[in-house]
Amino acid sequence: MSSIIGNNIRLSVFGESHGEAIGCVIDGLPAGITLDFDKINKEMQRRAPGKDKASTPRSEADAPRILSGVLDGKTTGAPLAVIIENTNKKSGDYESLKFVPRPSHSDYPAFMKFGGNNDIRGGGHFSARLTAPIVFAGAIAKQILAEKGITVGAHIKKIGSISDKGFDFNDISPELLSSLSSKSFSVIDESAEEKMRAEIEKYRLEGNSVGGEIECAAIGLPIGIGGNIFDTVEGRISSFVFGVPAVKGIQFGLGFGFAGQNGAVVNDGYEIKDGSVCLISNNNGGVLGGMTSGAPIVFSVAMKPTPSIASPQKSVNLKTMQNEELVIKGRHDPCVAVRAVPVIEAATALAILDLMMK
Amino acid sequence: MSSIIGNNIRLSVFGESHGEAIGCVIDGLPAGITLDFDKINKEMQRRAPGKDKASTPRSEADAPRILSGVLDGKTTGAPLAVIIENTNKKSGDYESLKFVPRPSHSDYPAFMKFGGNNDIRGGGHFSARLTAPIVFAGAIAKQILAEKGITVGAHIKKIGSISDKGFDFNDISPELLSSLSSKSFSVIDESAEEKMRAEIEKYRLEGNSVGGEIECAAIGLPIGIGGNIFDTVEGRISSFVFGVPAVKGIQFGLGFGFAGQNGAVVNDGYEIKDGSVCLISNNNGGVLGGMTSGAPIVFSVAMKPTPSIASPQKSVNLKTMQNEELVIKGRHDPCVAVRAVPVIEAATALAILDLMMK
Amino acid sequence: MSSIIGNNIRLSVFGESHGEAIGCVIDGLPAGITLDFDKINKEMQRRAPGKDKASTPRSEADAPRILSGVLDGKTTGAPLAVIIENTNKKSGDYESLKFVPRPSHSDYPAFMKFGGNNDIRGGGHFSARLTAPIVFAGAIAKQILAEKGITVGAHIKKIGSISDKGFDFNDISPELLSSLSSKSFSVIDESAEEKMRAEIEKYRLEGNSVGGEIECAAIGLPIGIGGNIFDTVEGRISSFVFGVPAVKGIQFGLGFGFAGQNGAVVNDGYEIKDGSVCLISNNNGGVLGGMTSGAPIVFSVAMKPTPSIASPQKSVNLKTMQNEELVIKGRHDPCVAVRAVPVIEAATALAILDLMMK
Amino acid sequence: MSSIIGNNIRLSVFGESHGEAIGCVIDGLPAGITLDFDKINKEMQRRAPGKDKASTPRSEADAPRILSGVLDGKTTGAPLAVIIENTNKKSGDYESLKFVPRPSHSDYPAFMKFGGNNDIRGGGHFSARLTAPIVFAGAIAKQILAEKGITVGAHIKKIGSISDKGFDFNDISPELLSSLSSKSFSVIDESAEEKMRAEIEKYRLEGNSVGGEIECAAIGLPIGIGGNIFDTVEGRISSFVFGVPAVKGIQFGLGFGFAGQNGAVVNDGYEIKDGSVCLISNNNGGVLGGMTSGAPIVFSVAMKPTPSIASPQKSVNLKTMQNEELVIKGRHDPCVAVRAVPVIEAATALAILDLMMK
Repeated sequence: MSSIIGNNIRLSVFGESHGEAIGCVIDGLPAGITLDFDKINKEMQRRAPGKDKASTPRSEADAPRILSGVLDGKTTGAPLAVIIENTNKKSGDYESLKFVPRPSHSDYPAFMKFGGNNDIRGGGHFSARLTAPIVFAGAIAKQILAEKGITVGAHIKKIGSISDKGFDFNDISPELLSSLSSKSFSVIDESAEEKMRAEIEKYRLEGNSVGGEIECAAIGLPIGIGGNIFDTVEGRISSFVFGVPAVKGIQFGLGFGFAGQNGAVVNDGYEIKDGSVCLISNNNGGVLGGMTSGAPIVFSVAMKPTPSIASPQKSVNLKTMQNEELVIKGRHDPCVAVRAVPVIEAATALAILDLMMK
Repeated sequence: MSSIIGNNIRLSVFGESHGEAIGCVIDGLPAGITLDFDKINKEMQRRAPGKDKASTPRSEADAPRILSGVLDGKTTGAPLAVIIENTNKKSGDYESLKFVPRPSHSDYPAFMKFGGNNDIRGGGHFSARLTAPIVFAGAIAKQILAEKGITVGAHIKKIGSISDKGFDFNDISPELLSSLSSKSFSVIDESAEEKMRAEIEKYRLEGNSVGGEIECAAIGLPIGIGGNIFDTVEGRISSFVFGVPAVKGIQFGLGFGFAGQNGAVVNDGYEIKDGSVCLISNNNGGVLGGMTSGAPIVFSVAMKPTPSIASPQKSVNLKTMQNEELVIKGRHDPCVAVRAVPVIEAATALAILDLMMK
Repeated sequence: MSSIIGNNIRLSVFGESHGEAIGCVIDGLPAGITLDFDKINKEMQRRAPGKDKASTPRSEADAPRILSGVLDGKTTGAPLAVIIENTNKKSGDYESLKFVPRPSHSDYPAFMKFGGNNDIRGGGHFSARLTAPIVFAGAIAKQILAEKGITVGAHIKKIGSISDKGFDFNDISPELLSSLSSKSFSVIDESAEEKMRAEIEKYRLEGNSVGGEIECAAIGLPIGIGGNIFDTVEGRISSFVFGVPAVKGIQFGLGFGFAGQNGAVVNDGYEIKDGSVCLISNNNGGVLGGMTSGAPIVFSVAMKPTPSIASPQKSVNLKTMQNEELVIKGRHDPCVAVRAVPVIEAATALAILDLMMK
Repeated sequence: MSSIIGNNIRLSVFGESHGEAIGCVIDGLPAGITLDFDKINKEMQRRAPGKDKASTPRSEADAPRILSGVLDGKTTGAPLAVIIENTNKKSGDYESLKFVPRPSHSDYPAFMKFGGNNDIRGGGHFSARLTAPIVFAGAIAKQILAEKGITVGAHIKKIGSISDKGFDFNDISPELLSSLSSKSFSVIDESAEEKMRAEIEKYRLEGNSVGGEIECAAIGLPIGIGGNIFDTVEGRISSFVFGVPAVKGIQFGLGFGFAGQNGAVVNDGYEIKDGSVCLISNNNGGVLGGMTSGAPIVFSVAMKPTPSIASPQKSVNLKTMQNEELVIKGRHDPCVAVRAVPVIEAATALAILDLMMK
């Protein structure tokens, strides 16, 4: 198992939910980048738990401590290491889980893979808490991309039965993306927020959870980034995005909508506009032949409902090999899609930066 | 741009549609594997063009010539290199395309990326013809996996408005997968074939093309293969599968269906059956926490309609920077999903073998 | 620039000499390894500064704090992160160096590479202090190797004009290697120590420094590890060993001695001994065709004199572009070869473990 | 085992000495490079066997056939695949070797590693014949480097007891390097050639072989290429150079000469010359802190005597497990150092190009 990703900017993520600290090392950053710590902290806060009913009540300061790679506020070119201490641990909640795997969680395959040696407390290295260093690294990636005129932003497209307005594939402004990135509950159509919160609350009150869909866009990339066969923009972004817990699908542009379509309708033609080549439509979500086409990169990801629910569930005891009913205590988000928005943005920014640094 | 993939078994694919030859090098194969050339050729023939109206009339023998890595029918442990000569080239068809990018193809970003130096004939290195060496390599991967009790198979789940029966996520037999892998038009419900062929023919006759969806499964994997964060089974398979031209989305298990669901309904509980731990359901498509759960790996991919259609399309001339109507001649499949089935199987087998060799 | 190495066990080293902390992340360790912290600390102490006149008077506790990847003294299979706080920093000593590169140090190319943004204090990320996390990681690698029957050990072969006895290439016992690994001044012929210490003291007193040679061996490896062309044992070990500051050469077996030799004399023949195949000699230092031959791996590395000397040296001011005489204050080892022994052992153990985990 | 190398330009080498063909795939080349096939062929001819008594009488046209990645003489940006057919095979000579490993060759570890499945004929994938595609790829790398003002060249520094004049580390002209690269017997002091040839002939006549040393330089590199810890110029070049059969050591600048030296004498000071920073000496061989210093990169490699000699040698039969005297027939160079010069240049050019493309 490896927790390192990237070819040019390499991110090494470490930590366990209830261990000493979590963190990451970012290797390959250019020197001389002035970091905007306010922006980094805002991203950290968007992801941080404990702020409202839509998220787990676990409260963590999530204050990153930079150990290396930054001097006088600027990157030195050496690896940037950051740690976030785990302060608010309640491990007692999890002791009973050691031999009784939680349904739809990593517990069972992790137990088999590591022979029971893995840290089960709070999900250990598989905890969504590990997305904190990803958001930190992504915040830095976003700043470097911003200097190249690239903006990344995402919103909650769907929660249960409630949908937000989707992106207009061919017309996405940096202002829209920045505005989405500044919200703690990111939707395009603000009237969707209340309905979505109600949907989440409904499931929370019944000790249940609900799935969702996040739509992400990146604009301002040069044409021709990526490559075909095994170096596609789609494949690279997927490698990063499937690293976000609960993601179970990804589609670019029309995605699965292509299956029922025909070429005459969905092909993206070209035209000259103000002396430049433009795509008339962007059903391909900004990627052609694995490379950026110049149109916005647009994709959406499917997020499953939080596996940890309060209702009793069928499980087994791996020690006694008997069926066992499981009731999960702990503290959990009823819908991961809300706090996952900055994480998807971060993973996307890291993937794009890695592609750009080639 | 890189056409090499894999961490443990590394596949390097080369060639251009109308160049001298296409092929690949497979680096890292274990020594002493007896290759079944009949099986390899059957896979090659499933993918090969020119067999019926559902595929391009370009006819290629697609006879692989192995240059190294095999002695007396067994792998030597040295890199296995194979080439397939390009014999039936009609490059004249493509000359006009050099400066007029075909909509929804790689042409425009490739032109920008390579400064016009890329081989445009037949799509060059971006041609779907490059899937021939992937199928060759995948056929070898399948044989090695078969010795470990692992079977991979796929079918056309949807073409346009016509759907096949889907996999039962929790009960997939090796016989079903093998039977699918032996067909040139792979469907579970054989009555779907005629309707799908009619759907394709309808679009072909109007000079159009149609999209589709392919569903793929792999069974027999040990529990705990893969890893979390950036080494997930989903991410690894995606990296390979997005290398198949026209793939625009991938979803594991319920995938995008998760967005409208709640945890109480879709969580995959456990039970003891005949003394073993079993999953009661497999909505996660065989992957939990990025690792194999022991249940079948099931995912589906969205394929866009073949971008090359006979009807006139809006494009531009990159030299004169004028709008230009484009009429594509050449020879093209009206639906890539049919011949892509063995390619998706091959890419999946290669991804799984790479994960297994760790 | 990358500070990550390894294909199977990946080591990411971070930190700057006078920054907050240094450390590393070890990714890919097997789960369930019981760590012997006494042994780890002993290795750390062998490398640690401040113990006698042969090393820098900078005193650091060098107490590693493990943040993740270890639970109840055993590896969990998740990345193991460790940090070592920098406590005894005297950065004032180095301010004058910012624009006046120290001869034979990284200063000048680092200034050019990072545009002056790199942390110059104490050499920053280029400081030999960064070998502390390498020794930590190497100590763990050694423990895992020991369980496989593999022992690594090294000694000071030469300092200035004084030589130690060399290894008998074909007959190296685990006892000898373990004994060398337990010394703070590792020599085979104990009478060499005093002479070497005198040699170092001579140079120290004149404000000078002296070079050396370290010989390292690894025994107990299976036959056939490594590979030819670009995966050679020699190349892999070199990649790790040149990561140790001041190493300027490496030779396996006879090494440069081969240049004056002929095949009839130096070829390593075979014979059957007690029913097993044995090498009659081991001039190739345990590597044939890039693979382990079953005989001890033996190589030596050349270490240049510590570049930091007390005498005035010719340098330039990169700001004023004038010649400038440089007098280095700071605290420095007069001979890096002494404390480099455990570092070379560590780098070797890491390289071998990485090769073995394939 | 892997035969792929490089991070940015990746070279995949394949083939077996007596198989169908050998070749390589170069992945990641920039598009639009006009290849000079005359220069490529000249490099191939420098390495090609059969030209005089100093080399094996096996005669091969070694005519490379480019399969992909080149159109109208220019690179397309897609992988460049090349094959060289094996035409002059005399496999009969080697049948007897299958179970009787040749001393100092790869035979024994390869037999153990591959379970006897490897192609033993002519050394199979371990044959020095595999250096032909390396020279081909290196010739292309040299052309790309030349456009950046970088020149690589090497000479035979020593054969047995005869030495050539060495490079002046601080003053190496492109003219000298180009002149060395145009010779089939590369020496700086032309009077050395005759003596070296006599030395080789002496060993050849007695059915013996002789070792040597090759010195290589690269000039014109920007300052700051490479990095510290595990991304050093020394480590990267070593990874490539140890891929050349028979190389057993490498040293940069003074290399092993540093061991007996002191800092006051060998430190490389700086001075301002014509307004630029210059190194007063270059004992570090152009690399400081793992990075290029601006001075010429200079290193030398030790080559062992050709292991295949005509005299009877002690070996064993791996089938009968009895001692067996071995008499090697076949055709072999009495001194590999002569034909290895262009191979070392090629490996160096590939390593530098890979470092430069980051």
